[in-house]
Amino acid sequence: MKSIPGGTVTSPKGYVAGATSAGLKTKGGLDLGILYSEVPCVAAGLFTTNRVKAAPVLWCQKHIAARRARAIVANAGCANACTGERGFEDAAAMANLAAKRLGIAPQEVLVASTGVIGERLPIGLIGANMEKVALSQEGGHALAQAIMTTDTHQKEIAVAAEGSELGEIIIGGIAKGAGMIHPNLATLLCFLTTDAAIDAHLLEKALGEAVDLSFNMITIDGDNSPNDTVLILANGLAGNKTIEEGTKDAEAFQAALTEVCTYLARRIAGEGEGATRLIEVTVDGALTLADARLAARTIAGSPLVKAAVHGCDPNWGRIIAALGRSGAEIDESRIDLFLNNIRLVAGGSPHPFDKDKVRAAMGRAEVPIRVCFNLGDYVATAWGCDLSAEYVTINSEYTT
Amino acid sequence: MKSIPGGTVTSPKGYVAGATSAGLKTKGGLDLGILYSEVPCVAAGLFTTNRVKAAPVLWCQKHIAARRARAIVANAGCANACTGERGFEDAAAMANLAAKRLGIAPQEVLVASTGVIGERLPIGLIGANMEKVALSQEGGHALAQAIMTTDTHQKEIAVAAEGSELGEIIIGGIAKGAGMIHPNLATLLCFLTTDAAIDAHLLEKALGEAVDLSFNMITIDGDNSPNDTVLILANGLAGNKTIEEGTKDAEAFQAALTEVCTYLARRIAGEGEGATRLIEVTVDGALTLADARLAARTIAGSPLVKAAVHGCDPNWGRIIAALGRSGAEIDESRIDLFLNNIRLVAGGSPHPFDKDKVRAAMGRAEVPIRVCFNLGDYVATAWGCDLSAEYVTINSEYTT
Repeated sequence: MKSIPGGTVTSPKGYVAGATSAGLKTKGGLDLGILYSEVPCVAAGLFTTNRVKAAPVLWCQKHIAARRARAIVANAGCANACTGERGFEDAAAMANLAAKRLGIAPQEVLVASTGVIGERLPIGLIGANMEKVALSQEGGHALAQAIMTTDTHQKEIAVAAEGSELGEIIIGGIAKGAGMIHPNLATLLCFLTTDAAIDAHLLEKALGEAVDLSFNMITIDGDNSPNDTVLILANGLAGNKTIEEGTKDAEAFQAALTEVCTYLARRIAGEGEGATRLIEVTVDGALTLADARLAARTIAGSPLVKAAVHGCDPNWGRIIAALGRSGAEIDESRIDLFLNNIRLVAGGSPHPFDKDKVRAAMGRAEVPIRVCFNLGDYVATAWGCDLSAEYVTINSEYTT
Repeated sequence: MKSIPGGTVTSPKGYVAGATSAGLKTKGGLDLGILYSEVPCVAAGLFTTNRVKAAPVLWCQKHIAARRARAIVANAGCANACTGERGFEDAAAMANLAAKRLGIAPQEVLVASTGVIGERLPIGLIGANMEKVALSQEGGHALAQAIMTTDTHQKEIAVAAEGSELGEIIIGGIAKGAGMIHPNLATLLCFLTTDAAIDAHLLEKALGEAVDLSFNMITIDGDNSPNDTVLILANGLAGNKTIEEGTKDAEAFQAALTEVCTYLARRIAGEGEGATRLIEVTVDGALTLADARLAARTIAGSPLVKAAVHGCDPNWGRIIAALGRSGAEIDESRIDLFLNNIRLVAGGSPHPFDKDKVRAAMGRAEVPIRVCFNLGDYVATAWGCDLSAEYVTINSEYTT
């Protein structure tokens, strides 16, 4: 597996993309984009677990059932969530406008929106600007920009995977995150493309596994959103023998897809609203995988842990307190805790450490926390970010 | 039922209290206190649900099983949590020191600690200062101060309840909160006293009911602590006929106890770290009580809702998004949402409202949010506070 420099969602064969400024974001900038495959694709998607689902999510869930798609149309500036039946009509209208622009059927177009909740989609602006979206092989970069809201950087990647019968296939991805990020998806949009030929059921399964290890293990603020969407298109233009379940090629594909998702998930966590650094929490020695995942996510999401990391404050009691409330099965007297490989706790009791060294480690761009349960064999890693005063400022003034 | 001006934990008959400065808080101030009843009491307690339990909690759980106690010794500045077996020995030593000071048995002394986690209790300082704790009928105020950490104000109340056979009984209470406050208790200490004669089992049940409607419905930051403790002592000096379950007097006692706990819980929520206002979330029309409680607490605890309230930003989509992820059973198309009785959502869709009026309402000391599910008959109320940059500042610099 190798990373492709400057790679994005248009790096695999046969994809074009583009974006324009349709006036949907109050700040201006690209806010309407299209991703398009020259040929029909097999497709899979994962969506928010929030009981309130945005109209574009309902549209996608309806049409992804066929496991086929060919394009994605996306906008920022308005989430088209909590908008009732008229919201669904607007999402359908957006798919229709893109389908007309591309000369394909509306059912082949998936829709994604992000931005303010509870306002109607300005479908007039979208209609007036759809023709202005210029599609090209470099257009993945513009699309990555168009879906940003409070993200500080666009998030893109592409990797190439090789296999005996696989030849070389490419997987590309873009994502946006920033606020409302929490396990089981958040105001997260992620679009993935591949030129691999792959069985549709396997694609769905592979996406589920990759998302479980990546997007479902990041947390920024405990909130998730009605709009969370991860979509993958596979157009088969790499010319490989169709990847089937249980083969070495399936393993190679899974590894590459997980790498793409993990990269994007880490970027989202590290660039959370107001964040200055990435927190990586690894739990090992848990009795069950569920325990390891729960504990890692709870620690990574604790406001008190996040604030302590922000202040480079080695107040490790907060990590143990978060662990304790996670519900994971623990034996307090067996717990070991390390920050950047410096031991802070041994067998559940304070262990002497060099405070200055720990403070310095907490000030780096990535802060690794490791908790050893010493009970079993299960491991999980979760990612979060520090909590800064800037987070509050951003979120006090979002709509006004 | 009537409120007693200047009432505190020493307002009921037969209680004295006091506090001293033992040098446990780095900032100085009162940090070691005692509450004492002239006669033995029936007692009940509720403790943290965190799997990591502080040593004083383990001490209390062991001795409250007998449903008898006569004194509480408490300190701030050190939580005596994550301190292993030596921590438990320190808690026992603290009980012994107080017992010696009071001339009673150590098993009659309950212990509570709050402050930094993971540091050993400075038992030498506690021993050296125990004799300096001067006990008096006005001493409840000093004790309320001694248990404060980052609280901005001390929290005290006493109410008198009357009943046919009850005569007049008094219930007093003090509490501290501020950080790590979340449903199912938090770095919450609450000591309650009453001069009522009451059956020990009924006292335990009444405490559970009152706490469920009050302390278990507040949230500040989603974290809870290993130290959370609510204790009640009942010494019977009011001379009433012992209150038994199923009587009118039991109802009167329950109402008064719930009022005391609700007052203290609201004070804790409104004075959360960095908070500038109280958020009161009422959910009605839910299918089950569990749904109503879950939804109310999730909304009150959402960082995005809290930040929006801080910025007086009528971004109601965040309330609906928090509701959606709460797990409560809802029908989106039936939901109504009101802020300070101004309707923002009708039947799941945006309802036109005067933004300036809503902004003004969000700037008041108490911000009432009401969500109507329109599905069933269950109602619940939860309390939280806004999220300010000051919260982050406080929690970035707690130990250093």
